Amino acid sequence: MKLKIGEMEHGSGNKITDVAGVTVGHTTVNQGENHTGVTVVMPCPENPFVHKLTAASFVLNGFGKTAGLMQVDELGTLETPIALTNTLNVGLVHDAMVTYMIRRCEAEGVPLRSVNPVVCECNDGGINRITRRAVGEAEVLSAIEGACIDFEQGAVGAGRGTVCYGLKGGIGSSSRVMKIDGKTYTLGVLVQSNYGASRDLRLTELPEEMEENDQGSIILILATDLPLSSRQLHRVVKRCSVGMARLGSYIGNGSGEVMVGFTTSRPTPVSGRIRSQLILEEGELNTAFRAAGEAAEEAIVLSMLHAGEDVTLEGKRIPSLKSYLT
Amino acid sequence: MKLKIGEMEHGSGNKITDVAGVTVGHTTVNQGENHTGVTVVMPCPENPFVHKLTAASFVLNGFGKTAGLMQVDELGTLETPIALTNTLNVGLVHDAMVTYMIRRCEAEGVPLRSVNPVVCECNDGGINRITRRAVGEAEVLSAIEGACIDFEQGAVGAGRGTVCYGLKGGIGSSSRVMKIDGKTYTLGVLVQSNYGASRDLRLTELPEEMEENDQGSIILILATDLPLSSRQLHRVVKRCSVGMARLGSYIGNGSGEVMVGFTTSRPTPVSGRIRSQLILEEGELNTAFRAAGEAAEEAIVLSMLHAGEDVTLEGKRIPSLKSYLT
Amino acid sequence: MKLKIGEMEHGSGNKITDVAGVTVGHTTVNQGENHTGVTVVMPCPENPFVHKLTAASFVLNGFGKTAGLMQVDELGTLETPIALTNTLNVGLVHDAMVTYMIRRCEAEGVPLRSVNPVVCECNDGGINRITRRAVGEAEVLSAIEGACIDFEQGAVGAGRGTVCYGLKGGIGSSSRVMKIDGKTYTLGVLVQSNYGASRDLRLTELPEEMEENDQGSIILILATDLPLSSRQLHRVVKRCSVGMARLGSYIGNGSGEVMVGFTTSRPTPVSGRIRSQLILEEGELNTAFRAAGEAAEEAIVLSMLHAGEDVTLEGKRIPSLKSYLT
Amino acid sequence: MKLKIGEMEHGSGNKITDVAGVTVGHTTVNQGENHTGVTVVMPCPENPFVHKLTAASFVLNGFGKTAGLMQVDELGTLETPIALTNTLNVGLVHDAMVTYMIRRCEAEGVPLRSVNPVVCECNDGGINRITRRAVGEAEVLSAIEGACIDFEQGAVGAGRGTVCYGLKGGIGSSSRVMKIDGKTYTLGVLVQSNYGASRDLRLTELPEEMEENDQGSIILILATDLPLSSRQLHRVVKRCSVGMARLGSYIGNGSGEVMVGFTTSRPTPVSGRIRSQLILEEGELNTAFRAAGEAAEEAIVLSMLHAGEDVTLEGKRIPSLKSYLT
Repeated sequence: MKLKIGEMEHGSGNKITDVAGVTVGHTTVNQGENHTGVTVVMPCPENPFVHKLTAASFVLNGFGKTAGLMQVDELGTLETPIALTNTLNVGLVHDAMVTYMIRRCEAEGVPLRSVNPVVCECNDGGINRITRRAVGEAEVLSAIEGACIDFEQGAVGAGRGTVCYGLKGGIGSSSRVMKIDGKTYTLGVLVQSNYGASRDLRLTELPEEMEENDQGSIILILATDLPLSSRQLHRVVKRCSVGMARLGSYIGNGSGEVMVGFTTSRPTPVSGRIRSQLILEEGELNTAFRAAGEAAEEAIVLSMLHAGEDVTLEGKRIPSLKSYLT
Repeated sequence: MKLKIGEMEHGSGNKITDVAGVTVGHTTVNQGENHTGVTVVMPCPENPFVHKLTAASFVLNGFGKTAGLMQVDELGTLETPIALTNTLNVGLVHDAMVTYMIRRCEAEGVPLRSVNPVVCECNDGGINRITRRAVGEAEVLSAIEGACIDFEQGAVGAGRGTVCYGLKGGIGSSSRVMKIDGKTYTLGVLVQSNYGASRDLRLTELPEEMEENDQGSIILILATDLPLSSRQLHRVVKRCSVGMARLGSYIGNGSGEVMVGFTTSRPTPVSGRIRSQLILEEGELNTAFRAAGEAAEEAIVLSMLHAGEDVTLEGKRIPSLKSYLT
Repeated sequence: MKLKIGEMEHGSGNKITDVAGVTVGHTTVNQGENHTGVTVVMPCPENPFVHKLTAASFVLNGFGKTAGLMQVDELGTLETPIALTNTLNVGLVHDAMVTYMIRRCEAEGVPLRSVNPVVCECNDGGINRITRRAVGEAEVLSAIEGACIDFEQGAVGAGRGTVCYGLKGGIGSSSRVMKIDGKTYTLGVLVQSNYGASRDLRLTELPEEMEENDQGSIILILATDLPLSSRQLHRVVKRCSVGMARLGSYIGNGSGEVMVGFTTSRPTPVSGRIRSQLILEEGELNTAFRAAGEAAEEAIVLSMLHAGEDVTLEGKRIPSLKSYLT
Repeated sequence: MKLKIGEMEHGSGNKITDVAGVTVGHTTVNQGENHTGVTVVMPCPENPFVHKLTAASFVLNGFGKTAGLMQVDELGTLETPIALTNTLNVGLVHDAMVTYMIRRCEAEGVPLRSVNPVVCECNDGGINRITRRAVGEAEVLSAIEGACIDFEQGAVGAGRGTVCYGLKGGIGSSSRVMKIDGKTYTLGVLVQSNYGASRDLRLTELPEEMEENDQGSIILILATDLPLSSRQLHRVVKRCSVGMARLGSYIGNGSGEVMVGFTTSRPTPVSGRIRSQLILEEGELNTAFRAAGEAAEEAIVLSMLHAGEDVTLEGKRIPSLKSYLT
């Protein structure tokens, strides 16, 4: 099957890691009744606490437990990797991210007394015995250590136990490239997909009883190297919602929809206290808007296409999208 | 052609006026180069300044000139009819709404020293010589006077000069009904459609050159008789964005997307200073969410289906959707 | 009496016009029962529609009718002068601002089909027969024409009919200067003061019965030449609330508190679609925060100090702060 | 010394626990270089996950790490106790709150797969070796277990290591009572105070060098039994900022100011899916606004008054406010 979503060209890997410097790592947990994990988006090779990235978020539906967005919104910056995990593991993953940042800063001789980890989540409690909180410090540090460009998609890491439109969901990613003033820029999206009622999926016909309710959550992480202010990035990130809606969701009550984005284009010093930030002429944002919508839609589809069939703790079969697209 | 959007049943008229008490009036202006107008949504037969309605707004893209939302958001109430017009007429229509409210309050012996009109707009400057501001007090008062249940759709009132996906846009409306605890409730949407690039429309194939850019604006007014708090109404109103995205827009930079909603279910006095507000159990909102998405999508389609072909001031032909759907 | 508020130095005129390029004009209306007016803050000598300024707003209490902030917040820019007037005149003043912008753009050969005037208001209905809407196009254009650096304060322009803590309010202004990397920057605030209960004023003791309720509104306009992004400017503008609170208000229900700010430091072109925006290192904002709080507090005090005593339409005496500070 | 802040009467204990059903518990940690702790506000005796409370937040400055507000804002409800701790302990305390909720729900036979703990924080890294994260599950569970009406104030629990205006800060609390329609209602505030530059304190004169910068954070928790919607509660909670500003802060860049409030007045079932929520007539909010400002100001002062002098890890003396107020 050849999937064609949108009209823009994608980057060489069709992944968020097409944005130079971005890597992604997973730890997948499969122990007894625990089928869950953690996925970490590393925004840059440098220490992000020292070299903060311009960032923004958009919450379409706040019925979720994502931590760290208050400071992202206030300061317009990201100062840690972004971790994705299951709902009840936010606390332990948050603490593991603090450990990671303390160690990294210590190793580099950077004093650290405060840091703002961004930890997003979906509820994988159908497939995973979620109350056991199976993702600990070791799992988070190992995901960070294993971060690479050519990461796996589907039922891995934070996508291990998620369900999407009644099908197996997971981690998916896609990218788009665009030319501005002769230079090529990249925008990539990574999703943790865990939302949607089966009868609403517009991609293919599914039996309604597979999943009757639009609940769960979806996390969309956007990375780019476009020169954008945090205000502009907020506008770009918001367009990921278009990809969701096109696939058929009506943004259900129980489905927390959270979008977080960053750009690797940083302000540069001009004098002691003054910096220069490169930004796009506002009308030019349209290309980035289109890219965000297309990449989000494709990333969601790919998260399902890469995931094999599974079974819930209660024994219900969760099919793969692959068996419905032929 | 039989149009079927979504799965829910619509109300008897398939219009926003299926919500009991709501009426809509238009004045269409066709004078020389002015092809524009005003549309007024009357939320209730009573004086809304005295009998305020619970209300909420959601701004998906704030590149627009809508007035009055700051107070709607703060107090969660609507105290005037809602007027829709062209971009440069917001001031005069705002003033005409003040005139209307002063006269109505005077006639009823109600003191009025402050009032918050809600005036929304789209830019019809392609078809209408917009700088002339052809909508004045007479036009607004006449639209209010003519408000009725069985109002016209298409290129009338505030929709006279709008363009949508390169096709003639206008005023469109649709409704959905739902049963809760044995009682039937209605939710209706009215749109002023003026956005979208031709190649993005998912309803039918259009030549790309018709309209290359996703600009303009779209206003979506939602009415319901569901018992909702303003917080809940905000969540419902937000779901109108789903209808937009499903039709293909990526929410262009220049396209101000504004959604305003109200419910005719008002708080009732319990004692001197305390009132009882009926609200829905939160999970039950899903039905209203689905209704908002479906009604918004259908209202946009109907706004185009009811509008005949037109021509811009510069002589460019603007076809009707009718000639593309057969 | 020597007034000393805060610790920072003020600019040469101790006014918002200490920021280079900013001018202010008033038209005061005194006709029969109409005692009102309009005040216009001109942000720069150039056409602001062509040379947009970075801008931001903060709404502490949205019980007001200010128009234009939705677009300011979305795009982070101001493209017209800012007009202040009485509550029911927002529509006519909005329309007059459109007239002004159309004429100015026509004269400069700039096409204009859309423009976003910012019009703020306070309710002066105690002293002014507000339902008559005495401020029209002539008054607005005359205020713009008369804009200057050394403008009047007190009961003039939009401050003609306002009441503050039971005393005569009006227009007041103050500024602060600061050094960053050896260069001097200026921040100025202009207020239209119309809020506060008498017993709450912390500046001096007032009889409680003068004004029992904290209602009305206050508008605070902030101008600066500091290099700031709209996100940073939003943070600076928010600190005007400190000045209000220090004087004793608890931000009453009926008192719409609106803050709008802009910087004359604009992004500059780097290549066709890319611009460079100078911004402050975030920690350095503290100086601007302190300046905003001090200038706002002093501007409110000066608005009252410059206003002589007055009488309401119902014959109630409104004393001047001067008679209480000796 | 007799402290008199504001004009309203306070409740019998002058604490947040004057609101019936609210209790507060601390665990204070003093081990080696760790001088920190956790404070838990229990909103009601019942399981809050089953009997959710109407809630709201207001973030005046988002430079902080508080978790859980996204869902509070979306749903307008609180479903767990509120925990306060040090900045780097947010993750572990979050996880401990999940443990507590799982156990409590298990004991009551309530299924739980998702829960939204609210965890607030201040940075006590001057007095406490914060990177060691000394607050774990045992400390959190013990604070919950020890929750009572007559809790301690000053340098205890989450206030053990905080510094305020260069003086020892801590936990402080105050309340106000008001009569509406013949019935008495209570509003209480609890603060964790850790902000402010010494020269800005308006209560008394302090040497400037004590604390030159307005940094740190302040958390303000508001409880009431007033019948309020979440929108109204948001407006009430926002008025805590008045108390802060009156004491002299300009809301420094590094000082995260976070306010969270709840009411014990819950919606009651009317039919299967419909509930009745009691709310206040909007104008009556003024009494609650005044109460919030007064109680916040007094709670901050009391947090300092109850705290004895201390010394930082680097040996700097942190005096008590007591030695400056005589």
